[in-house]
Amino acid sequence: MSSPLDRRHFLSLRTLPAADWQRLLADAETLAGPRGRERLLAGRRFGMVFYNSSLRTRTSFEVACFDLGAHAVYLQVGGGLWQLEHRDGVVMDGDAAEHVKEGVGVLARMVDGLGLRSFAGLKDAADDAKEPVLHAVARASSVPVLNLESAMDHPHQGLADAFTLRRRFAGRKGRVVVQWAPHVKALPMAVPSAACLAFAREGHEVVLAHPEGFDLDPGVVADATRLAREAGGSFTVSHDRAAALRGARAVYVKAWGSRHAYGDPQAAAKARAAHGGWMCTERSLAETDGAIVMHCLPVRRNVVIADEVLDGPRSVVLEQGEARLHVQKATLCRALGISP
Amino acid sequence: MSSPLDRRHFLSLRTLPAADWQRLLADAETLAGPRGRERLLAGRRFGMVFYNSSLRTRTSFEVACFDLGAHAVYLQVGGGLWQLEHRDGVVMDGDAAEHVKEGVGVLARMVDGLGLRSFAGLKDAADDAKEPVLHAVARASSVPVLNLESAMDHPHQGLADAFTLRRRFAGRKGRVVVQWAPHVKALPMAVPSAACLAFAREGHEVVLAHPEGFDLDPGVVADATRLAREAGGSFTVSHDRAAALRGARAVYVKAWGSRHAYGDPQAAAKARAAHGGWMCTERSLAETDGAIVMHCLPVRRNVVIADEVLDGPRSVVLEQGEARLHVQKATLCRALGISP
Amino acid sequence: MSSPLDRRHFLSLRTLPAADWQRLLADAETLAGPRGRERLLAGRRFGMVFYNSSLRTRTSFEVACFDLGAHAVYLQVGGGLWQLEHRDGVVMDGDAAEHVKEGVGVLARMVDGLGLRSFAGLKDAADDAKEPVLHAVARASSVPVLNLESAMDHPHQGLADAFTLRRRFAGRKGRVVVQWAPHVKALPMAVPSAACLAFAREGHEVVLAHPEGFDLDPGVVADATRLAREAGGSFTVSHDRAAALRGARAVYVKAWGSRHAYGDPQAAAKARAAHGGWMCTERSLAETDGAIVMHCLPVRRNVVIADEVLDGPRSVVLEQGEARLHVQKATLCRALGISP
Repeated sequence: MSSPLDRRHFLSLRTLPAADWQRLLADAETLAGPRGRERLLAGRRFGMVFYNSSLRTRTSFEVACFDLGAHAVYLQVGGGLWQLEHRDGVVMDGDAAEHVKEGVGVLARMVDGLGLRSFAGLKDAADDAKEPVLHAVARASSVPVLNLESAMDHPHQGLADAFTLRRRFAGRKGRVVVQWAPHVKALPMAVPSAACLAFAREGHEVVLAHPEGFDLDPGVVADATRLAREAGGSFTVSHDRAAALRGARAVYVKAWGSRHAYGDPQAAAKARAAHGGWMCTERSLAETDGAIVMHCLPVRRNVVIADEVLDGPRSVVLEQGEARLHVQKATLCRALGISP
Repeated sequence: MSSPLDRRHFLSLRTLPAADWQRLLADAETLAGPRGRERLLAGRRFGMVFYNSSLRTRTSFEVACFDLGAHAVYLQVGGGLWQLEHRDGVVMDGDAAEHVKEGVGVLARMVDGLGLRSFAGLKDAADDAKEPVLHAVARASSVPVLNLESAMDHPHQGLADAFTLRRRFAGRKGRVVVQWAPHVKALPMAVPSAACLAFAREGHEVVLAHPEGFDLDPGVVADATRLAREAGGSFTVSHDRAAALRGARAVYVKAWGSRHAYGDPQAAAKARAAHGGWMCTERSLAETDGAIVMHCLPVRRNVVIADEVLDGPRSVVLEQGEARLHVQKATLCRALGISP
Repeated sequence: MSSPLDRRHFLSLRTLPAADWQRLLADAETLAGPRGRERLLAGRRFGMVFYNSSLRTRTSFEVACFDLGAHAVYLQVGGGLWQLEHRDGVVMDGDAAEHVKEGVGVLARMVDGLGLRSFAGLKDAADDAKEPVLHAVARASSVPVLNLESAMDHPHQGLADAFTLRRRFAGRKGRVVVQWAPHVKALPMAVPSAACLAFAREGHEVVLAHPEGFDLDPGVVADATRLAREAGGSFTVSHDRAAALRGARAVYVKAWGSRHAYGDPQAAAKARAAHGGWMCTERSLAETDGAIVMHCLPVRRNVVIADEVLDGPRSVVLEQGEARLHVQKATLCRALGISP
């Protein structure tokens, strides 16, 4: 059922062929150098549709396009843009003035590639797992679609994080912990899922550490386990943070909500409140192997990670942000059929 | 009273000289080819001021500018932009922090052309018919102004629709019905007015079909009648949809509000509710001459047009959207004095 | 303590070296000609972070960048962008999802220069005088930062106003009055402060005229006095508008709030209401020496300045707006290390 277009979409780290993963990371390294400022994509137009806020994603794509001679059009749903419907067969008498079929269908006739950001609805975990908006957009588009963070995946972030670790670890493997952290809100699971999948693909000794009740989507966990094995690494889950962090060389900190309290704000707040001690501090990192600390940003200081960690030498969060620019040049080239 | 600048504005299909109309459509055909990707407008800047939301208009102008080497600046009133006053002699102690005289006056010193979107106020039909915001902006501007949809006209949409029909009809004439459709809101009359004017200018057998009470502005109807006659076609109004559609080769579907319920939401809702049967379905199209179906978008599925029509072979709505790109390259070249 | 980066920031007219001031105005004159349309900044990226609305500043920087071959990224805090925290040591459990340290830190890795607009908080005059947001951003940035209006300064406006006066006065000196005007709101003091500093630097006979209780920040007044003396001019304060305006060759009109009613809306409204007669009218200008009238825009007509003045030959407000384009090309070149 795979079409040539499907092979140029960049939707999920769960399904990306291993050869494409390696190629994208190699291209990103090339494009982090002078080659990334040449007009490889001269005259191309990239449309970006955001259902949600963005600083890094939007800026890094806009700059990546400019650096390569292309132009990014930034479109914010709800901010000067019509609300969009994505479900099939609906009588559209509500807030949405336009269907993705028409909105995306027309956009695709004006640009050479499309990016989409559409966060999890956080009402129905089974529905979010199906990525209904992302897939509706991909179906409606006649040009390649790039996932700029969907309900359950953030493949560009995962790629940037793998890029950052390769540079920091100089290509070696090691123990990498993806750890849950507290937050004032029940956040989506896209980033921790992408981090698990990315580090699994890199063949690290990956440990996902979280309190009971904060498990990620079972399909993601199964894929991370398989991908880690295929890459010569491992993927395990732990509810004991101290044990998980012992000997870690990298700690990826991220807050997310509980699938079991989905759509129940009170239960969600109660579940989070029970684990305030999971904030990342110097003390919590004492038994790591001099671990670096990673976060996708934005990060709430002294809620998710303490100032002492973010302001100290462990933090590589700015490098991760910069890496977005390099890896996205690679995914743009892939989507538009250009070899860097 | 006409100045050289007035001749470079593109404000309304009612007043555009016939030679300019033909020239724009011919240029659009040229610019739909490789010529439309050359740097004909290198270094030019086009400012776009939107009082209302936009997807297609904003994207197509931004891409058209980029394709031709120009740059579009997108400005959203109320979204990071001051509210603007357009009336003369007002003591500005309300919400508006700036007058069009200064806001547009300064913009015009920084760009080479200006686009304006300002929908109908829908409070006072006589006021809307005077296009107060559009004309205030045109007066305040020292550079050409393009109408990106005003209270009573949407000339770029009309141009794109004529372009689409020329391609679909291979230049031949035929029966074209502009038909009213139900909607959840009382929408402005700019698009159906522009469609009538555009198809009249093309010399088609144009029929405007709507329930009683949904008549368009009498001035627009008079101009469409005159333009149709001058072009060798005809323009008639019908309240009998079935009779109107018989033998039609194209059906342009659009919802709009009643001028007689202007500013009275309850009366407007009641008027609309009485005509739910006007939704465009396959059944309603059965006696047409294999008509294509057109809509300017955004369209509410299963309220204005049924899924079966939009997802079937009759629909040319995506072509209409794409045509915006081509015709706008032509109006930009005209405004900036460049012959493609 | 001054680093090379500090010398490339453009934060305040209070501290800018006199040689830089002269150089920027000379460069602006060069860049107002054909040189300002050459690709002097080819490939550079300029990020603009706006906490507040903008028309002129945003458009003029975007156009200035395009004219010189650079690209401006426009980011609106709160409009598709996370809220930002700038204070140190805060537990971020409120509205702000990101700290300036990370937000600006990452942006600075994607662009070559950053602009920031962050108006006065108008809650605490002592806090505003410290420019906490501007300085937090400058500290967090590894690239030059340009002040696009901060709590207490608007150096690009001051530069544009000096540029406009030089052209209007053909380089001669004269009596220039910065006069307070009434308004519906208690506005910040950034613009009148910048105007005083700019005209003082130019060696004019500067008079700051306002009702009692509307004095500017004492530090600004002291700096303006010193700068005027150094430039061979003078700086005085008057509460008698008629006396101040007598013999003036330029009148700079601007509304601002009272420092003594800071954070007290009722007292502020009462203070303003007592001085409605300070609106700028033809009659108020009768004893000037044919003065031109200046305003930074946006201006509320018939509240701050009467129609008769804005629509008459005295007004140079559109020239001031255009001058923004020219002077900003100069500050961009300075920040990015390019000599025009």
